[in-house]
Amino acid sequence: MEDRGIQDYYEDRFSHCYGCGRLNDRGFHLKTRWEGDETVTRFRPEPYHSAIPGFVYGGLLASLIDCHGTGSSALAHAREHHLELEEFNAPRFVTVALKVTYKRPTPLGPELEIRGRIREVKGKKVVVDAAVMAEGRICATGEIVSVLVPEDFGS
Amino acid sequence: MEDRGIQDYYEDRFSHCYGCGRLNDRGFHLKTRWEGDETVTRFRPEPYHSAIPGFVYGGLLASLIDCHGTGSSALAHAREHHLELEEFNAPRFVTVALKVTYKRPTPLGPELEIRGRIREVKGKKVVVDAAVMAEGRICATGEIVSVLVPEDFGS
Repeated sequence: MEDRGIQDYYEDRFSHCYGCGRLNDRGFHLKTRWEGDETVTRFRPEPYHSAIPGFVYGGLLASLIDCHGTGSSALAHAREHHLELEEFNAPRFVTVALKVTYKRPTPLGPELEIRGRIREVKGKKVVVDAAVMAEGRICATGEIVSVLVPEDFGS
Repeated sequence: MEDRGIQDYYEDRFSHCYGCGRLNDRGFHLKTRWEGDETVTRFRPEPYHSAIPGFVYGGLLASLIDCHGTGSSALAHAREHHLELEEFNAPRFVTVALKVTYKRPTPLGPELEIRGRIREVKGKKVVVDAAVMAEGRICATGEIVSVLVPEDFGS
């Protein structure tokens, strides 16, 4: 996948997410990839993404964990089903539950690395454990439960 | 407090939050108030705050719950200590743990209402239960555990 993320393989109709949609002009364009058995997303917050000055806004950290979780779930589901990714056949997951624990203030400035481990893949549901790292230290951890987008989503 | 929120009473150094800081030019400027025994924050997402088109981005919902939680915690702590709010004496809380459950897709367009109930006030810790409503329906629920900003925050 070179420098691409799973998000580059979503159908157009699933590519408008503020966090990770390649078609959202105002969004973060997060990209999630395998690195060995872990999944990784990297993002450098803007100076205005502050909580208390000098530290990253907790809502942004929750957003990074959220999209990292759905992206990781899609990667895990594709691997489970031996799906070869091509434009635009990636499965699309949505979050049903998100937990974030803030371990220490996250410094604002460095690029953040969000790492994920797949805890469970069961039918249409995936559970991912995530950690947000800054300068090699874990600043926040998270758990994301996501499901394959239902055919009747939003109806 | 008329149309003011607890966030209008934070010290300047605590008023740069992307979610609710009055001094953050790029932020959401969330304002949290009492309505009876519940706390309320209202926010209308922008068109680009989408998840799947037509629905609100889950990371934004987590952000709203996060700042609503810290604001509600500050209100509860001030009430517990019979503190009369004035510029700029409000206590400042930070989130240590956040849980969000997405109950149904949140329509993108209407103003959202985030309502909170104080579950626990114990020393420097407050626990708040929150619900995000759109057009009178609960779309997401959350739990926020927050603590009074430690004197050594970030050191």
